[in-house]
Amino acid sequence: MTDRDYMMRAIELAKGGLGWTSPNPLVGAVIVKDGRIIGEGYHERCGKLHAERNAIASLTESAEGATLYVTLEPCCHYGKTPPCTEAILEQKIARVVIGSRDPNPLVAGKGAAILRAAGVRVEEDFMREECDALNPVFFHYITKKTPYVVMKYAMTADGKIAARTGDSKWITGESARKKVQELRHQYMGIMAGIGTVLADDPMLNVRIPGLKSPVRIICDSGLRIPMDSQIVKTAKEYRTIVAYAGEHSGEGCKEAEEKEEQLHTAGVETVSVPDADGRVDLRKLMEYLGKQGIDSVLLEGGGTLNDAALSAGIVNEICAFIAPKIFGGAGAKTPVSGIGVAHPAEAVMLTLRQMETIGDDLMLRYSVD
Amino acid sequence: MTDRDYMMRAIELAKGGLGWTSPNPLVGAVIVKDGRIIGEGYHERCGKLHAERNAIASLTESAEGATLYVTLEPCCHYGKTPPCTEAILEQKIARVVIGSRDPNPLVAGKGAAILRAAGVRVEEDFMREECDALNPVFFHYITKKTPYVVMKYAMTADGKIAARTGDSKWITGESARKKVQELRHQYMGIMAGIGTVLADDPMLNVRIPGLKSPVRIICDSGLRIPMDSQIVKTAKEYRTIVAYAGEHSGEGCKEAEEKEEQLHTAGVETVSVPDADGRVDLRKLMEYLGKQGIDSVLLEGGGTLNDAALSAGIVNEICAFIAPKIFGGAGAKTPVSGIGVAHPAEAVMLTLRQMETIGDDLMLRYSVD
Repeated sequence: MTDRDYMMRAIELAKGGLGWTSPNPLVGAVIVKDGRIIGEGYHERCGKLHAERNAIASLTESAEGATLYVTLEPCCHYGKTPPCTEAILEQKIARVVIGSRDPNPLVAGKGAAILRAAGVRVEEDFMREECDALNPVFFHYITKKTPYVVMKYAMTADGKIAARTGDSKWITGESARKKVQELRHQYMGIMAGIGTVLADDPMLNVRIPGLKSPVRIICDSGLRIPMDSQIVKTAKEYRTIVAYAGEHSGEGCKEAEEKEEQLHTAGVETVSVPDADGRVDLRKLMEYLGKQGIDSVLLEGGGTLNDAALSAGIVNEICAFIAPKIFGGAGAKTPVSGIGVAHPAEAVMLTLRQMETIGDDLMLRYSVD
Repeated sequence: MTDRDYMMRAIELAKGGLGWTSPNPLVGAVIVKDGRIIGEGYHERCGKLHAERNAIASLTESAEGATLYVTLEPCCHYGKTPPCTEAILEQKIARVVIGSRDPNPLVAGKGAAILRAAGVRVEEDFMREECDALNPVFFHYITKKTPYVVMKYAMTADGKIAARTGDSKWITGESARKKVQELRHQYMGIMAGIGTVLADDPMLNVRIPGLKSPVRIICDSGLRIPMDSQIVKTAKEYRTIVAYAGEHSGEGCKEAEEKEEQLHTAGVETVSVPDADGRVDLRKLMEYLGKQGIDSVLLEGGGTLNDAALSAGIVNEICAFIAPKIFGGAGAKTPVSGIGVAHPAEAVMLTLRQMETIGDDLMLRYSVD
C-alpha cells in the first residue's frame, strides 16, 4: 500500500456523504500506522463530525506517530465543531498528507501551518486534482457565491429529447432514470422551465425512500404556472421558488400581483428577476439563489431554457444521458435549441470528464470550459 | 498462459489484416507447444496465405503434438489456396481450438470433422463471440449477399451535425477525422447523398498514404451530380457508382440519357434503382452493390439519407462521433431527420458495442437490433 492507495481510500470514504454534507464539502480521512489502517472516517452530514474526527473516533489503537491522509486541509477554526488541527495534535499524529487546499481564503493554508509549527510533517497538494474533483459544488459556491449548475438531459443517439409529437416517455431506461433521482438528491435545487411544467406537470421530487428532494425552481417569466399543477399543489411539502419577470407597472400588473398572492398562499415563493427583454434574468436568479444558500442546481430544462442558461454562462457542467435508440425527425426537439451558433468555432466548448454505462444507456459528464 | 490468452493473441493478430482481406475474413492463428508459442500468423490480404499456413510458415520447431488456436474454422476446400486442414494434418498438430464457425453453409463443420476423423482433438465455439466480432462484414455478406452498412456521423454533445448556417467544418478534432479515414479504408464502399455532394463537393477518398480508398456510391435520384464536381472529375481514379431513379420514359428522359452518357464518358458507373415514389430504392441498390462484390458500405450521409437508410432497414451498425461542444439552434441539422417516429416505443433500437475516446471526441459504435 502506498500513499496513493491510502488517499484513494480516503476519496472513496468521502463519497459516503454525497448529497448530505452541503454546504460543507465531502471529506474522507484515513489513519495509517506501521502499514496498517488503524482508523478511517468521513464527513457524513452537515453539523456532524468532520472526517478527521470520525477517523480518530474509529481508532483501534493509539495514533501516536501515525500518518493521517485527508482529502481536504484540516480546519483550524471553531465552526459547528472544534478545530480538527487540535484533535490531530492531541493524538500525536506525526505526518499529515493533504489533498485539496481549503478554498476559504480566511482559512487556506492556516491548518497546515498550525500543524507544521507543532512539529507535524505536512505534505500538501497530494492527489489534489482527484481530491478537488470530489467537491466541484463546494469550490464553486464558496468562491462565486452562486449555485453550481449541472445541465442534465437525456437524448437518443441521434440527438433527440422527444419524438416528433413531443412524447418523451421514455428516452432512457429504468437505471438511468433512477440515477437522475440520485442526482436530484445530490444537488440542492432543481430548475425547470414553465414549458416543462405545462407539458408534463411534473413533481420534480425524489421518489427513492431515504433520499432528500431538492428545492424546486421554476423559470416562468409570465407567471403562467397553473394553481392546480403538481408543483403548486405540493409547495407546502417541497420548497418551491417561481422566478418571473415582473414589471410592477403597466397592464397585467394587478393580475400578476393577484397570482403572486395566490401562489404565496399555496406556499410558493416568488422572485422577480426581469431582464431588459421581459424574460427571467438567469444570472440575477443565480445570485438570488446563492443568497438563499442554494449551492447547486440541477437544470432539467427543455431546449429553450438550456439554450438561455448556456448563453447566460451559468452552466458549469453538462450531464448527458444517451439512449441506444434513434427517433429521427427533422422537427423533433434537441437538448439545446434557441438560435444556435453560426459557425463551429463559436461553439460552447466542453471537456469530457466521465463516461459510464448505466443500464443500456450511456452517461457523459462534461465540464463547461 | 491459458487457452484464453492464446486465443486473445490470435484475435489481436487477425486485426493486422483490417481492410485488406475482403472478401475474406480476418483470421489469426497461434501454435503452442509445451507452453511456448512456436508459430503465429494471420491472413494478411485476399489471395495470400491463410492464417494457419502463415503460422505454420513461421514455425521455429516441429509442430508435432502442438495446439493450434485459430479464430475461424480451418478451410477444407481448394480455393485460391489449398485446404488448411491438410497443412494441419501434415504438421501432426494434436489439438485445434476454433473460435468462429465457418458461415459458408457448404463448408461449415466440415473442416472440424476432417480433423477429428484424422485423430486431432478439436474444440469448437471457443471464445466464439469475440472471434465472431472480428468479422461482422464477412458473416453478414456471405449470408445476406448485400453489403454490411455502417452509418457514420459526427455530432455535438447536443446532437447537431452542423451549425445553424450549415457550416460543419469541423465538428470533431483531427484524431477523429483520421479515424474516419481509417474507416474508409476498412470498408469497401462509401455512400453519400447528392445533398452532400452539392453542399461540400467532397472527394470521399482516403488521404493517408498506404491505405486504400473505397468505391464511391452517390444516391442521386434526379441525376443532378455536377460534371465539374470532385467526384466526377476523379471517377477514373476511384471507382464511382451513381444510383438514380430513372423512369426511362416521359419528359426529362432524353436529358437523363445524355447526362448518363456524359457520366459514363467521365468514368462514372450509373445504376437506375427507382422506387414507387421516384426516389432511389436503397434495398435494390444494396442488392445491386452486393452483386458487384461490394461487401460493406460506410454511409456518410446527411440526415435525409440516414433517415431513408434506417427506414429501409439496410443499416447494420452506427458509428457516432460525439464532439465535446454545444452548437444549439432549434433549426440546426441533426444526424437523422425525415419525419421521425411519433412515440419513443417506435424508435429504431440499438445496442452499444464499443465506446472509445479519440482525441477529445468520443466514438460510440452501436449495432442496429
